[in-house]
Amino acid sequence: MIDNRQVKVVAFDADDTLWHNETFFREAEEKFAALFENFSPAHTVTRELLATEIKNLEWYGYGIKGFMLSMVETALRITHGAIKPEVIRHILDIGTDLLQKPVNVMPDAPLVLQTLQAHYKLVLATKGDLLDQERKLRKSGLEKYFHHIEIMSDKKEADYQKLLRHLDIRPAELLMVGNSVKSDVLPVLALGGQAIHIPYHITWAHEHAEPVIDQAGFVKAEKIRDLLPWL
Amino acid sequence: MIDNRQVKVVAFDADDTLWHNETFFREAEEKFAALFENFSPAHTVTRELLATEIKNLEWYGYGIKGFMLSMVETALRITHGAIKPEVIRHILDIGTDLLQKPVNVMPDAPLVLQTLQAHYKLVLATKGDLLDQERKLRKSGLEKYFHHIEIMSDKKEADYQKLLRHLDIRPAELLMVGNSVKSDVLPVLALGGQAIHIPYHITWAHEHAEPVIDQAGFVKAEKIRDLLPWL
Repeated sequence: MIDNRQVKVVAFDADDTLWHNETFFREAEEKFAALFENFSPAHTVTRELLATEIKNLEWYGYGIKGFMLSMVETALRITHGAIKPEVIRHILDIGTDLLQKPVNVMPDAPLVLQTLQAHYKLVLATKGDLLDQERKLRKSGLEKYFHHIEIMSDKKEADYQKLLRHLDIRPAELLMVGNSVKSDVLPVLALGGQAIHIPYHITWAHEHAEPVIDQAGFVKAEKIRDLLPWL
Repeated sequence: MIDNRQVKVVAFDADDTLWHNETFFREAEEKFAALFENFSPAHTVTRELLATEIKNLEWYGYGIKGFMLSMVETALRITHGAIKPEVIRHILDIGTDLLQKPVNVMPDAPLVLQTLQAHYKLVLATKGDLLDQERKLRKSGLEKYFHHIEIMSDKKEADYQKLLRHLDIRPAELLMVGNSVKSDVLPVLALGGQAIHIPYHITWAHEHAEPVIDQAGFVKAEKIRDLLPWL
């Protein structure tokens, strides 16, 4: 149940909530793995890449630039230094290609945002690189509905605490909408905020968490349009 | 002249305004150039690196991760593909080393921030990677004086317009304090905001701009302590 009389700010996750993103990362991983088919099977390469990404999160945070650096580092490690320079060049190309992907907006997102904008302050609350998210927001055509972008270095309780302080609102006045139970739902509920989970068909291995079932301030929706009856 | 009766928010640039930063980048560039002393003289290597960085700004924005990727790209280009994998490893090490530098706060910064905090909302308005700036702010011990961090993808007029909208203030209510005339002063004044310039002894080649001399809403200070009489 969402208590919409309390809500002042609706914060939307961006990637895989408002537009498709994870599919592009999976494609990039496949292209990366294909560069090393003479060294290791694809699933080994992607497992090594994931391990590098998680190790580096503390230093790089989220986003494509960190992903690119982790690909380069993984490539050096799994080839034991026997890598050709042109392979490094290919890796950089995989990354810059990611930065130029089209933005495919989820069905009904414009309608839902337009409707909600009349009643709430809408913010985009996302991890990743600000410049990349700004570019995607511009390409999406959804920019006009949002008060501003909140870039979060992570989406843990402490990060949402900062967000609440930044927005000058109480926890129950925040409604977070996103596709990750781990990042968009659990920490918000733990602080006394409200959350709507809209699952996406692919989740990055590092984002997996068991969905919560029954808690005040929480509902699960199938599509972004299902938000409207709650708000 | 600063009209302090209008000011509501004092936004501080971070790097080279509150703490030393550019010296670490110059050291990193020298280490990078030294890797290629058999290929090119140091000034040629750093010129090539700067050209790569500027070309990539549109895609990477500011910060250490983009700097690392530009070093890798430059290395591949200037060696014409004849680079050893361990040199790429060294480049990544130069970058991760940068992420772990100590934070040396400018003299009097704590005193000045503590004094101003009683009268204004203080925000940190900076380009670069959020995670890195959060880490530096924490290390600096200055975190407690700031309402929040504003990460800006660039510091042009349009970016300050977003910042004003985000803060819900009029231009004259913003006072920006920073070391870059190009990034911290000119775009703010152009919008009708106020700015204090505190020069730093090193400026990145891409940040050079001729100081403005005489304009309402602007003063030049020698040290951060010189802010106090104006506020």
